[in-house]
Order: sequence, then C-alpha cells, then structure tokens
Amino acid sequence: MNFNEKLKSKQDLINSYLREYINIKDAPEKIVEAMKYSLMIGGKRIRPMLAISICEALEGDLNEVMPFACGLELIHTYSLIHDDLPSMDNDDLRRGKPTNHKVFGEAIAILAGDGLLNSAFEIMLDAAASGGYKNKYIRAIAVIARASGVKGMIGGQVIDMESEGKNIDIDTLYEMHSKKTGALIEAACIIGGIIADREDKLEEIRNYSKNLGIAFQIVDDILDCVGDSSKLGKMVGSDEVNGKSTFVSILGLDKSKRLAEKYSKSAREIAKVLDSTGFLVELTDFLLNRDH
Amino acid sequence: MNFNEKLKSKQDLINSYLREYINIKDAPEKIVEAMKYSLMIGGKRIRPMLAISICEALEGDLNEVMPFACGLELIHTYSLIHDDLPSMDNDDLRRGKPTNHKVFGEAIAILAGDGLLNSAFEIMLDAAASGGYKNKYIRAIAVIARASGVKGMIGGQVIDMESEGKNIDIDTLYEMHSKKTGALIEAACIIGGIIADREDKLEEIRNYSKNLGIAFQIVDDILDCVGDSSKLGKMVGSDEVNGKSTFVSILGLDKSKRLAEKYSKSAREIAKVLDSTGFLVELTDFLLNRDH
Repeated sequence: MNFNEKLKSKQDLINSYLREYINIKDAPEKIVEAMKYSLMIGGKRIRPMLAISICEALEGDLNEVMPFACGLELIHTYSLIHDDLPSMDNDDLRRGKPTNHKVFGEAIAILAGDGLLNSAFEIMLDAAASGGYKNKYIRAIAVIARASGVKGMIGGQVIDMESEGKNIDIDTLYEMHSKKTGALIEAACIIGGIIADREDKLEEIRNYSKNLGIAFQIVDDILDCVGDSSKLGKMVGSDEVNGKSTFVSILGLDKSKRLAEKYSKSAREIAKVLDSTGFLVELTDFLLNRDH
Repeated sequence: MNFNEKLKSKQDLINSYLREYINIKDAPEKIVEAMKYSLMIGGKRIRPMLAISICEALEGDLNEVMPFACGLELIHTYSLIHDDLPSMDNDDLRRGKPTNHKVFGEAIAILAGDGLLNSAFEIMLDAAASGGYKNKYIRAIAVIARASGVKGMIGGQVIDMESEGKNIDIDTLYEMHSKKTGALIEAACIIGGIIADREDKLEEIRNYSKNLGIAFQIVDDILDCVGDSSKLGKMVGSDEVNGKSTFVSILGLDKSKRLAEKYSKSAREIAKVLDSTGFLVELTDFLLNRDH
C-alpha cells in the first residue's frame, strides 16, 4: 500500500471505532444525534491518527490504544462545537457544513459538547476496566484530561478570546497555540508511547509533537490568509475579520513560511528516528504540506 | 457533637478540599476565578456529604474518598452553570447570587462549566495515580462518568428541555428526575461503598439512594410551589412560570406530600441499617425535612 492507501485504511478504522462508540443506547435520541452529527461529519482524524501511528511505530497494539485515541477525537469535536457557539466565535459553517447550533439549536449544542467530553471519559474508563485495570491506562487518561483542561486546551481558548481585537506579542501567540491546539496534539502522541509501554521514548515523542503542533498552527494561519475557501470549507480571511492575531499578522507571510519550514523539518527529523517504517515521516509531511 | 455540629464539621472539611482543588495554577486567572465563583458560592455539598458519610459508615477512609466526592461537586456545579445559561433556563440568580454568565459573560461561563467537568476528572485521575492505581479508583470514576453523561444527568437535562411547556406523564417525570438529579446522588452514594471496599453493600446503597433521590426531588417541587423565596434564594413558582411539569402539577400538593413521605420513610429505613452511628439517618432527615 502507498501512503494514501495506508492513511485511508487507518482513517476508516478510526471511523468504524468512532461510529461504534457514538452508537449510544439508553440516552435521549436528540442528544445522541447532535453528538453524532459533529463527530461523524468528517475531518482528518489527526489526533487519533497520531496516537495510533506512534503506538504502532513503537510496536504497541493498535486496538489497545484505540479507545484513548478516539476519546481525543470526541474531546476535539466537543471543543469545536463550543467554540462555534454564538457567544464564542459565532461560526455558521464548520468543514463546509452548518455548525451544530445551526442545526440543533444552542441549548442542544452546548449539551452535545458536554456529552462528548463526558463520553470520552466514559469510553476511556470502560476500556481501562475491560482491559484489566493496567496502570498505564490511568496515566494515559490523566495525560488527556490535563491536556484538555484549563491548563491546556480550555486555557488556550480563554487566551484566544482575551486576545481578540488586541495586538498580542509573539510569546502570547505561542502560548495560546501551544495550549489551544498543541496540548491535544501532544497528548495524542504521548499516549501512543504510553500504551506501547515505551516510557523511555516519551521525551522524544514530546519533542516531535511540540514541533509538529506549532508548525501545524503556522500552516493553519498561512492557509487562512492565502488558502482556497472551497478546499478549506470555511471563509478565508476569517482571522482578520475576527480581529485575531496570527503568525502571519505578527511576523508577515514570508517569515511565517520560513518558521513553518523550520519546525516542520525538526518534526520530520524526529519522526524518522521514531518510526523506522517511514509512515510517521509521511504523515508529518501530509499534515504540514496541505492546502486545507 | 450533635448532628448540626457534625454536619458543619464535614461541610468545612469538604470546603477546605474544594478550595485546595480549585486553587489551580498555570491557567488563565479569569477562567479559574469564574470556576471558583460558582464552586465556592455555597450550597449544602449534598453529593460529597453523601459519599463521605456512606464511606465512613462502612468504615472506609474519609480522606481516600474525598477526591471523588469533590469531583462530584465540581460536576454538579458545572451542570448548574450550563443549566442557567440564556439558551437553557436563562436564570439570573442561583443561591441568591448572580449566575455565572451574569458575572463573567456567556462565553466564560460556558468555558468555566467545561473547565469544572474536565477538572473533576483531572482531580480524580490524579488521586487514582497518587493513591497507588487501585482498581476501585477506576470503578469509582467510571460510576461518576456514567452518571454525569448522556445516559444520566445530561440525558435528564435533555428530557427536561424537551418536556417544557408540554403535559408529560408521571413515568416521564420519574425518568427525567432519576437522570437529571438522581444519577449523581446515586453515584455519590455508590462511590462511598466502592472506596470503602464494600461491594457487598452496593445494592443496599443503590436502593437507599434511589429512594432518597426521588424524595428529594418531590420535596424540591413542593418547595418551589409553597416555599419561602428568601430562604430558597430563588423565585417561588418558577416551575409554573417556565411551564415545567412537576410532581405537584401532575399529582397535586397533597398526593405529592404523601409520596415524599413514602420515599423518605424507605430511605430512612435503609439508612438505619447502613449506618449504625445514626448519622446517615439524621442526614436523610436533614435533606428531606428542609425549607430551602
């Protein structure tokens, strides 16, 4: 299989697990439908993809890491639903489709977000119990919980909101992104190592994920500035409209491109060492050389 | 010590743990302030109180159950913040004070709720790790996660919203309450037994909590109808204004009072057996013979 086939096969596997996990019984249909809408609307499944790819690269068991990898995707999805709400970013479109509150109303959208966050922990805790209560499961869930909380993703969202319409400096921008998107990407990579029982590799993995996370964000900012809105599934230039500071607005386009290349190169170098099969290098290229 | 002194001493202890847990560093001040505002504004601490009281009654370690007991209080608090939002119940007052979104704005209130739910899991997972990764910790956290999710509390909130302005039958009302408030009360009681290593008592505890939960809710409905708003810290008659079906609106006041007495009596009988010191009986009386 070439890279695209391998990627597709992994995405299909992730989606089949997600579909199973979100097939929740004994709950009001409406809320499950709303959760499923945003979870199954698409997306590249970057976080679970990183978790399973690193776990596999270190000879861990793909099925063992899957509940934690999918937990991350549920958490990522909840954060998008809440970010899109009228009192937050007030977005009508996400991945080219109406946002959750546009389809189900604001109250259900809030509850669907809550439900996804909560379900992530239910899935991971059930897996920890049915998998034999190994210590590493608690460690993996704790890593994810910390990354998604106020010291991580939620904290980053607060910094983002507080920065709107202001000129922030580059350090604040780094901190915001390292929390808002970087924390979950880092957690995804780290749990791959934890479930593979490779605590000795965690520093290297962390280093990879930090370079990847920041490169990913700079590319995101560049695409918001020069990308193709039909490919992105959202309006180009939305950052500027929303008065958001970005790498491009602070550093300019050329310097941002050079910075993205620098971090991409570092991530690529570490990926080479971590995964002898070459898949992680190709995945890194795929994530950073994208047009959407 | 008499009952009131014992209760006060336990509440003080719970509050000191909560104050410690919510003293979060490495996170934006604003969000921590908003979370703290709603968490420390008061309240009877019913859920942690039940968890520690049942754990103690079964000769478990009070300090060991505390992180899970407090996790429940954080989850309860987040649910109140989100329930009060303009797109949900649109309440301005909670416990006689302005609701979270009235003080911090809607966006921060949503994030503060998310942060409290997430922090609950962080606290409980940290305790599981530092307490030596015992299996019972995963079981306790899983019980709480299930109770707070779409099969429990969130599901109950959806049924509540869907029932607004409609005439629902008594079975739907039971289901709504058993999920919306009953599930967390049940989880509180159950984790007391789990942490005390008394799996043999769980059925009895579940039975106690179900009777307590439903009695508690009927008393709540009665107070909303005939209570004193200055003691309740909220408007009396708000259920009627909001078009909500209650035990009183479906069964009438007299029948509701008789039903509350029936469930209270059952809860009291089981409490007597569960706790030879008598504290749980007194706590049950305190929760059910209240005027606010």
